Amino acid sequence: MKTISNPNPSTWSDILKRPTQTVNDIETTVTQIFDDVQRNGDQAVAKYTQLFDGAELASNTVTTEEVELASAKISTELKQAIQQAKTNIENFHKAQKTEKVSVQTAKGVNCWQEKRAIQKVGIYIPAGTAPLFSTVLMLAVPAQIAGCKEIVLCSPPNKEGKIANEILYTAQLCGVTKIIKVGGIQAIAGLTFGTASIPQVYKIFGPGNQFVTVAKQLATKYGVAIDMPAGPSELLVVADDTAKASYVASDLLSQAEHGADSQVILVSTSQNLINAVAEEIEVQIKALPRQDIAKQAIENSKSILVETDAIALDLINQYGPEHFIVCTKDDDFYVNGIENAGSVFIGNYTPESAGDYASGTNHTLPTNGFSKAYSGVNLDSFTKAITFQKITKEGIQNIGRTIELMAEAEGLQAHKNAVSIRLKDLK
Amino acid sequence: MKTISNPNPSTWSDILKRPTQTVNDIETTVTQIFDDVQRNGDQAVAKYTQLFDGAELASNTVTTEEVELASAKISTELKQAIQQAKTNIENFHKAQKTEKVSVQTAKGVNCWQEKRAIQKVGIYIPAGTAPLFSTVLMLAVPAQIAGCKEIVLCSPPNKEGKIANEILYTAQLCGVTKIIKVGGIQAIAGLTFGTASIPQVYKIFGPGNQFVTVAKQLATKYGVAIDMPAGPSELLVVADDTAKASYVASDLLSQAEHGADSQVILVSTSQNLINAVAEEIEVQIKALPRQDIAKQAIENSKSILVETDAIALDLINQYGPEHFIVCTKDDDFYVNGIENAGSVFIGNYTPESAGDYASGTNHTLPTNGFSKAYSGVNLDSFTKAITFQKITKEGIQNIGRTIELMAEAEGLQAHKNAVSIRLKDLK
Repeated sequence: MKTISNPNPSTWSDILKRPTQTVNDIETTVTQIFDDVQRNGDQAVAKYTQLFDGAELASNTVTTEEVELASAKISTELKQAIQQAKTNIENFHKAQKTEKVSVQTAKGVNCWQEKRAIQKVGIYIPAGTAPLFSTVLMLAVPAQIAGCKEIVLCSPPNKEGKIANEILYTAQLCGVTKIIKVGGIQAIAGLTFGTASIPQVYKIFGPGNQFVTVAKQLATKYGVAIDMPAGPSELLVVADDTAKASYVASDLLSQAEHGADSQVILVSTSQNLINAVAEEIEVQIKALPRQDIAKQAIENSKSILVETDAIALDLINQYGPEHFIVCTKDDDFYVNGIENAGSVFIGNYTPESAGDYASGTNHTLPTNGFSKAYSGVNLDSFTKAITFQKITKEGIQNIGRTIELMAEAEGLQAHKNAVSIRLKDLK
Repeated sequence: MKTISNPNPSTWSDILKRPTQTVNDIETTVTQIFDDVQRNGDQAVAKYTQLFDGAELASNTVTTEEVELASAKISTELKQAIQQAKTNIENFHKAQKTEKVSVQTAKGVNCWQEKRAIQKVGIYIPAGTAPLFSTVLMLAVPAQIAGCKEIVLCSPPNKEGKIANEILYTAQLCGVTKIIKVGGIQAIAGLTFGTASIPQVYKIFGPGNQFVTVAKQLATKYGVAIDMPAGPSELLVVADDTAKASYVASDLLSQAEHGADSQVILVSTSQNLINAVAEEIEVQIKALPRQDIAKQAIENSKSILVETDAIALDLINQYGPEHFIVCTKDDDFYVNGIENAGSVFIGNYTPESAGDYASGTNHTLPTNGFSKAYSGVNLDSFTKAITFQKITKEGIQNIGRTIELMAEAEGLQAHKNAVSIRLKDLK
């Protein structure tokens, strides 16, 4: 980890720069596969599943029997763990339900706002080295609480045509209505256009590699919403001498093991802490099975020494970390002052991995500085707010003249007339 | 208006098809202007302002003096109207404030969610035939309530280098922090990259022509959020014999005058009502200054006769109208059953134009079926939800084993280790 001492604010944006990703060169591939799936449906999907996943499937729809077989293979201990995580995630997301907002803005003018579930949602779960069943929890649990009618999960099959047992088990536990063996661009295209086997959905959630990321971007052009734009995962820790260096090191490493392009940043007012963390990283990294990946990420990462908490906070808000760990003598200063972050972890006993799995908060969070404008996934991500208004005769008499004047000033005579014709009858 | 009687549900998607827009051919132009503004800043902006708006400006920043001069030219009557609308919009959006959501998911595991304002937002207000100052209200009022620090308004100057008085007046009334004379692609590019005169923002709101729409789409690739994708405005009215035909006609026409590509649909269980509305349209349209536009829109529009309210509701949910007027003997059936709509207007005395200007609801709404997944602009559009968690020693002991098991099953050893190292100390 490179240490930078008291950098001038004018250099912050350079220091905090994320690894740039160029995705333009894969846009052509993504567009071609979208066109093919739109035109040829399941036939095209099967072709790409064979090409990219090496799997030839008689059917890409997971059967009840397959789910039962998979569930039987999960240890009781892991099932209990998944159940505890599910309960915590449920409780935190259920608490996010909002009541109808109702206001009489003028006498006889009643306005209200209600959230209604997005009827059809798609959940994308990547395969890869390990089964990300925790992401199934994070997306299917709030979808079910929101009341989404169709919850379609897509995940690429392995060469034997299978999805990991843990994913199948968690999906049925969380009320997923359909599980489909399809991955990559073809999965996103299928959810966008619909095929005989893949239902068309209104919003697509979930992580993925750069092909999936670009495919989700393209889906928005066809009117399908997505959870948020994606980038490599990242963690910023602010810590001082009240923090335990070995804990900070373990948190930085848990982020670093995600990938060589993971971002790990330590901000501190204490050179001692920075030194101690660096030493601890050296020790702990040796025991990690994914130490090659972690090493690369750590090499690209930075420790930044700053003079005051106020400077640290400014710098952190400029960065807008996805994960933000605070472990200082004055945690409240950071908690109250943070403007841009996905999820915040406070104190020595709150590792990032708690939020990744089981504290109850969602782990689908804005990376790449998107926390400046985007929320992480939450209950509202699965609903939309609809407004309603009901105006009485008295109400339209109260605000009618205002509407007429404004419509006229905007040159919209028919807008004015819709009010005038009513007011005339009420005279 | 073409009348379609009892169409088979299999034909609905064809009948409800929106006018297709092809935007691909302008992407090149948009990309070029973005590149130019990114590289050359205000110099490029000035060039395009001269090219597209025919204005040569000494400075594109509106001065306090200009705003004062503009305000002096607004009639007292219109000022009062704008003030009443502002109060109603304020009251409705203030009521949307949500409290911190706090849950102890397990003993010692405290999770909460808080909304924080998006610090820098951009508001785009098109020029054109009339000044859309009502959109200034709809965007700046909730931005100010949310607590956005920088609220930057961009609007194209006319040939004399001026923005309409009504826009300047409303902008200062609603706490806009900077008003800039810049429009079109160059405005969106400026807000995306920042220039010497245009602040970079985190989220861009507001309507615009197809150039602005494509530019906002491109802005998202650079990490700037946008309110929602845009399409032509649309209205669906469901009405039966309890509705007054002349009112329905006036509402359909108020939508039709927006543009030749506006969508206007009438759904009814009553052939009588459909006939009466058609007759009323013929009468009312003659008095409209924008009757040429309205006529084209009406020609493209449809009356759909259905047998039951249940069928009507299914069809309406499949369409997902931006504006939805309900005027039937059983309004509650539709109000309770509507899943996909931007804003709903109930009863004979609730014209769409009430919501466009002064009822208090927001008029920036999802078009093009986007109501299936998107909310209209509301207070939360100007905030993001951040989650927090603080875990005690007891807390990590309560959920630590669960995290370890799940991290291990996902092959993420460092994630597990971040917990193990803490649990070990607590033994």
